[in-house]
Amino acid sequence: MSRLMHEDSEGLSPWQAKINEIIFGADTFLGKLFDIVLIVAILLSVAAVLLESVDDIYDVYGRELLLIEWGFTLLFTVEYILRLVSVKQPLKYAKSFFGIVDLLSIIPTYLSLFLTGANSLLVIRILRILRLFRILKLVNYLGEAEFLIAAMRQSRRKILVFLYTVMTVVIIFGSIMYLVEGPENGFNSIPESIYWAIVTLTTVGYGDISPHTPVGKMIASAVMISGYAIIAVPTGIYAAELSQVMNKARDARACEGCGRTGHEETSLYCRFCGTKLD
Amino acid sequence: MSRLMHEDSEGLSPWQAKINEIIFGADTFLGKLFDIVLIVAILLSVAAVLLESVDDIYDVYGRELLLIEWGFTLLFTVEYILRLVSVKQPLKYAKSFFGIVDLLSIIPTYLSLFLTGANSLLVIRILRILRLFRILKLVNYLGEAEFLIAAMRQSRRKILVFLYTVMTVVIIFGSIMYLVEGPENGFNSIPESIYWAIVTLTTVGYGDISPHTPVGKMIASAVMISGYAIIAVPTGIYAAELSQVMNKARDARACEGCGRTGHEETSLYCRFCGTKLD
Amino acid sequence: MSRLMHEDSEGLSPWQAKINEIIFGADTFLGKLFDIVLIVAILLSVAAVLLESVDDIYDVYGRELLLIEWGFTLLFTVEYILRLVSVKQPLKYAKSFFGIVDLLSIIPTYLSLFLTGANSLLVIRILRILRLFRILKLVNYLGEAEFLIAAMRQSRRKILVFLYTVMTVVIIFGSIMYLVEGPENGFNSIPESIYWAIVTLTTVGYGDISPHTPVGKMIASAVMISGYAIIAVPTGIYAAELSQVMNKARDARACEGCGRTGHEETSLYCRFCGTKLD
Amino acid sequence: MSRLMHEDSEGLSPWQAKINEIIFGADTFLGKLFDIVLIVAILLSVAAVLLESVDDIYDVYGRELLLIEWGFTLLFTVEYILRLVSVKQPLKYAKSFFGIVDLLSIIPTYLSLFLTGANSLLVIRILRILRLFRILKLVNYLGEAEFLIAAMRQSRRKILVFLYTVMTVVIIFGSIMYLVEGPENGFNSIPESIYWAIVTLTTVGYGDISPHTPVGKMIASAVMISGYAIIAVPTGIYAAELSQVMNKARDARACEGCGRTGHEETSLYCRFCGTKLD
Repeated sequence: MSRLMHEDSEGLSPWQAKINEIIFGADTFLGKLFDIVLIVAILLSVAAVLLESVDDIYDVYGRELLLIEWGFTLLFTVEYILRLVSVKQPLKYAKSFFGIVDLLSIIPTYLSLFLTGANSLLVIRILRILRLFRILKLVNYLGEAEFLIAAMRQSRRKILVFLYTVMTVVIIFGSIMYLVEGPENGFNSIPESIYWAIVTLTTVGYGDISPHTPVGKMIASAVMISGYAIIAVPTGIYAAELSQVMNKARDARACEGCGRTGHEETSLYCRFCGTKLD
Repeated sequence: MSRLMHEDSEGLSPWQAKINEIIFGADTFLGKLFDIVLIVAILLSVAAVLLESVDDIYDVYGRELLLIEWGFTLLFTVEYILRLVSVKQPLKYAKSFFGIVDLLSIIPTYLSLFLTGANSLLVIRILRILRLFRILKLVNYLGEAEFLIAAMRQSRRKILVFLYTVMTVVIIFGSIMYLVEGPENGFNSIPESIYWAIVTLTTVGYGDISPHTPVGKMIASAVMISGYAIIAVPTGIYAAELSQVMNKARDARACEGCGRTGHEETSLYCRFCGTKLD
Repeated sequence: MSRLMHEDSEGLSPWQAKINEIIFGADTFLGKLFDIVLIVAILLSVAAVLLESVDDIYDVYGRELLLIEWGFTLLFTVEYILRLVSVKQPLKYAKSFFGIVDLLSIIPTYLSLFLTGANSLLVIRILRILRLFRILKLVNYLGEAEFLIAAMRQSRRKILVFLYTVMTVVIIFGSIMYLVEGPENGFNSIPESIYWAIVTLTTVGYGDISPHTPVGKMIASAVMISGYAIIAVPTGIYAAELSQVMNKARDARACEGCGRTGHEETSLYCRFCGTKLD
Repeated sequence: MSRLMHEDSEGLSPWQAKINEIIFGADTFLGKLFDIVLIVAILLSVAAVLLESVDDIYDVYGRELLLIEWGFTLLFTVEYILRLVSVKQPLKYAKSFFGIVDLLSIIPTYLSLFLTGANSLLVIRILRILRLFRILKLVNYLGEAEFLIAAMRQSRRKILVFLYTVMTVVIIFGSIMYLVEGPENGFNSIPESIYWAIVTLTTVGYGDISPHTPVGKMIASAVMISGYAIIAVPTGIYAAELSQVMNKARDARACEGCGRTGHEETSLYCRFCGTKLD
């Protein structure tokens, strides 16, 4: 998408086109330099937000970290404005995924003037790193990501059916445990018991709430072994779908001699009739 | 099933047929409206049950929530009676899955007059949402669910063999840990040690019971690594079965000779009668 | 194996053959009855051992449970002796898997006269239930179990390589954490730190030992995400092997017409050339 | 690699060649004996390091364990020097994987003279056991390991994309939880909240930090169920890749035309040059 913006620079004035080339492009030296500087700035600013939240560090370096945060925010604000003025359709950019992320990456600092703690939301800047994949020409990585996303899209419905099942199971088991264990054993309410059921079914098991009565322990055991069997379901779904997606990628080429598919990417000749493949 | 009931309305009086159409059907405007209102009512009534169990909320809104609960229960009671009188075979409906769920969805409120806390069981109403799949014509979702269920049915025996193995492992390891750790370290009895073994093998790990002696920790480590290896088994089973089920369904071709389906994509001849496939 | 013993009853005296038929066989009415009674007795005796270990129950029913335990042990002793005298090669039986399990199922009670708590080991009786599979003619279940075992045997070496890797990872990470966190944070010794690493890598996470220093938490995070990625390995191995075993089962029949394999179990005709299969 | 060193002993003096044969080789009786003694020495020395870190054992046997540690270190130092002098290119050996491991296996003891606790790092000696695979001619095991590594190499990119996703998820959820729960509930800083998110997403769940507010518990539930769904991804990737690697290796046929292998079982013609396969 950003590539389209870059190429589509005909209607821009010369200085707009130059800025566009540097900010959106990655083909010129300045374009590459800008992108690398940007990524370093993003990582440093996120690190600053993380460190600022640590009391011991804030007590000593609070002033410096605040300065850094404001510095990066002003920098990113200038960058955001430059992006807006250097594209032909500013609104289209502003509404795009990266446009929204870019905006959300500067708002929290200004918000923090009125709302304490809002600057923690600056970590959303980490999403801007996604540009990295474009810059470093990590096309192969994008290809792999597409595989993963295709398999996810195909298994979307199965996953939803699975999630409904999980929700039903935790609501019913949570309610039963609330009746069996009760507030005296930490199961204070049904929502909290449902929270316990989720913690147990997903095998996280904090131990902040755990059954104390023999009957409760028996039901909990049933939930755990169910969780153990249920965990097989999404994995099985995903593995099977991914296998199919990967196999389909092999079926793209059909042999001109015999019409059969199923050739590997590296194959030069049909493995059934020996005809040369394209 | 409910569709059958809907269509099979010939022997009913006009007003029975009308009610049947609205309550069981989803083809007319009133039928659709009724279904949507029903789903909203179910979700609201379940939410009320959940909120009622939270002490802080109950102290303030207890009276209102009780009113809501009784309101919905009376509504669902009327609906249940209407369902009974508007079908040709009331007993058949009453014995069906949804008939039982519909009944169980109203009983707990009446029970709560004699038995405190029984109304928590009202959460079973969540199962009524299953009707949603029919109403919203979510046939595709049902298809996906059938895939999952078919794979589960095929792996049923393997899962049972697996569960017997798990039970044997936890009983034997639980007993050994009871001997090694003993009541002074929280392993109060063999059943409780078995509970610990289940918590550990399923990788839930609450931490309410955990080994304290060096030997106990060594045995626990063995259980954990076993659990780690064992978790691979049901996932592997399910992934393999689901792959097969999905492959089988890939080709929906019916044989012209015998009409049977289930041929693989690469098949040229019917595997049942030998007729050439298209 | 036990079937062989049953059939091989030629050299036995009439009463020996009769006992053999009842105890080892499952074809006659008495043989079936004996087997069913035996299974009930095993389950009851294991239940008695479990209950005996619960203090509250022992205080009230201790005397009765002790009587039951001795009763079953004497019964199983008599049965063991009868098995020994009714087979042609008593030593062969005594050395077989079930022979050893049968013996281990009675010893703990006698041991408990000298060694308190030894009777907890009676739970090994649960292994005798394996006979159930033979008696109830659960051949299908045995078939499924064979699939699982075949896949396990094939992935044996991969699993061993995997286990060596896991052991190396936990020893090295355990030692590092011992240096980083130290006894003041619960990492009392390297073996205990290795125990922590196993608890973490297997995602059990009791929480009895957990990192307190920032560096320790960073290393722990690395271990957890590794564990997350590593858990994929045995599952992947097993799923892949099981798929192959299941596919191979389909390759057993070769078509007489074209020699190709890969037919499904239910196929009657070759799916490539249409020739009738055996 | 070490085999190459062994064979490449032409330019060495007779005594150098003899030492090389014993230390690097495993074909002669002395070579085998040396290797077995070495493995026993490694295991014993690692065990000594582990035991030394246990206070109770150190108090009683500290002196003996220190002696053993120094004994083994001197032994391994002599061995390291012998390895250096008996190869033609000492620097090449010193820079090789085993050369570095051999050096790291002796340094910590000398370091411990100046730096308390450094000797815990001696556990790195466990990596020397990797030689075991060569000595015991465990070629099959190496073959299996190669399978696992090949599948890992192929899924490398997918795993990296997956890890980036996980990192982004934990940073964003960690920051949100820091805002929602705050230091009063144990979420002291964003880095600590990210640590919590990792502990939760990987289903480890120590319970040292866990949400206390209703909103926090709802977000935590979302993280857990995500983790549950996300865990399917690397497993699915690995299972699918391993399946492909195993399928590819099924057929070891080399093409007569171009000598290349890697043909599928069903292939009739070489997929590289089109020559007919046997």
